[in-house]
Amino acid sequence: MSTHLHHHTETHFSSSHTVRDVVIGMSDGLTVPFALAAGLSGAIDHNHIIVTAGFAEIAAGAIAMGLGGYLAAKTEAAHFYSEHAREVQEVEEIPEVEAEECAEIFRSYGLAKTETDLIVNAIRRDKKRWVDFMMKFELGITAPDPKRAIQSAVTIAGSYILGGLIPLAPYVFIPETHRALLLSACLTLVALFIFGYVKGKFTTNKPLQSGWQTLLVGGMAASAAFFIAKLVGG
Amino acid sequence: MSTHLHHHTETHFSSSHTVRDVVIGMSDGLTVPFALAAGLSGAIDHNHIIVTAGFAEIAAGAIAMGLGGYLAAKTEAAHFYSEHAREVQEVEEIPEVEAEECAEIFRSYGLAKTETDLIVNAIRRDKKRWVDFMMKFELGITAPDPKRAIQSAVTIAGSYILGGLIPLAPYVFIPETHRALLLSACLTLVALFIFGYVKGKFTTNKPLQSGWQTLLVGGMAASAAFFIAKLVGG
Repeated sequence: MSTHLHHHTETHFSSSHTVRDVVIGMSDGLTVPFALAAGLSGAIDHNHIIVTAGFAEIAAGAIAMGLGGYLAAKTEAAHFYSEHAREVQEVEEIPEVEAEECAEIFRSYGLAKTETDLIVNAIRRDKKRWVDFMMKFELGITAPDPKRAIQSAVTIAGSYILGGLIPLAPYVFIPETHRALLLSACLTLVALFIFGYVKGKFTTNKPLQSGWQTLLVGGMAASAAFFIAKLVGG
Repeated sequence: MSTHLHHHTETHFSSSHTVRDVVIGMSDGLTVPFALAAGLSGAIDHNHIIVTAGFAEIAAGAIAMGLGGYLAAKTEAAHFYSEHAREVQEVEEIPEVEAEECAEIFRSYGLAKTETDLIVNAIRRDKKRWVDFMMKFELGITAPDPKRAIQSAVTIAGSYILGGLIPLAPYVFIPETHRALLLSACLTLVALFIFGYVKGKFTTNKPLQSGWQTLLVGGMAASAAFFIAKLVGG
């Protein structure tokens, strides 16, 4: 039983919002600035322009994704409260319809009519709990954390910036474009693998597979950007 | 009751995966290439370089986000199957622990011991249904659609490309950078507002507010990229 409880703690942590936000920000932060810089290296021979474009991309991406995460969390919270208000109203005004919906949930798991009636009557005793039950089991949504939106924005944006600085650093310090590209690719592919590995530790039982997959996504995005830029710019 | 059923259909649709994928792809597709191009306009006076960087970014972003969505759906599916296998094993090997967890769910909604025992015994009658019940009500996860990963990848990538072509088009057709920037900004801000408005129609009851918010995010990302690029590149 102790491993069983341990498993549930792990599951809870692995699906936690912060891990998800770091993954969202860092996946794109490691990939897109890397791919953009690599792409430009295929078409332009001025590190100054590559660094300018890279920093502009990091600023744009971090703000777009951070604010996107902020608004998504706010929308999710607003959605919860509007659905909650509707359930409260329905429990008040059309209790028989709600009771029938509640019964339907249990019937779908094979419970008999007498059993279902008993449960539904028990749940109906307390209107607040009834609403909570319908929110979770009919609509599948839970009460949002009020600090979530701002935390989500900062975590996503910070992870994006942190991820984006790795592929860009070589272009800042090495004047020759193709040597900078080579070091950037090495650094970033290693970082993508490590990131994918750690992500895999949290979300699946296959960290190695996750490491290779993440490396592959970054490599493919960078290759595509490289060839598109060569086509358009070369 | 007909409006009630109507409301549930709407709720289901608004949270559908496709809408979510279009929103994910298009939010970033409209914002990041726009911000990057605007940023470079602040530092570089060659539309050719801006267009090259823009297309490289669209390729990189579409692939990174599309494959990211693909892997996220695959990871979610793998997570479901590994949790499902564990529940099947637990129901087989430690049924009393599972029954206690099942009872705990109902006790938290205020059901008495006799009622809880009755429900738990009814659910236990069919092991397959019992596992389904624990998956949904204990862990809160549902069976994934096998076609979801590839659909998600295509929808996100396509929406990103579609969104990214709008801010970039003026730089392709107008040779003078600052006039292209002006048209790009006008076109993109209008597109962001329309996109935010439509998104708001689906996800909240406040389309206007959603329109202005989406426009603001794009505008802020573009302004930040503009000033960062001027600082680094100018």
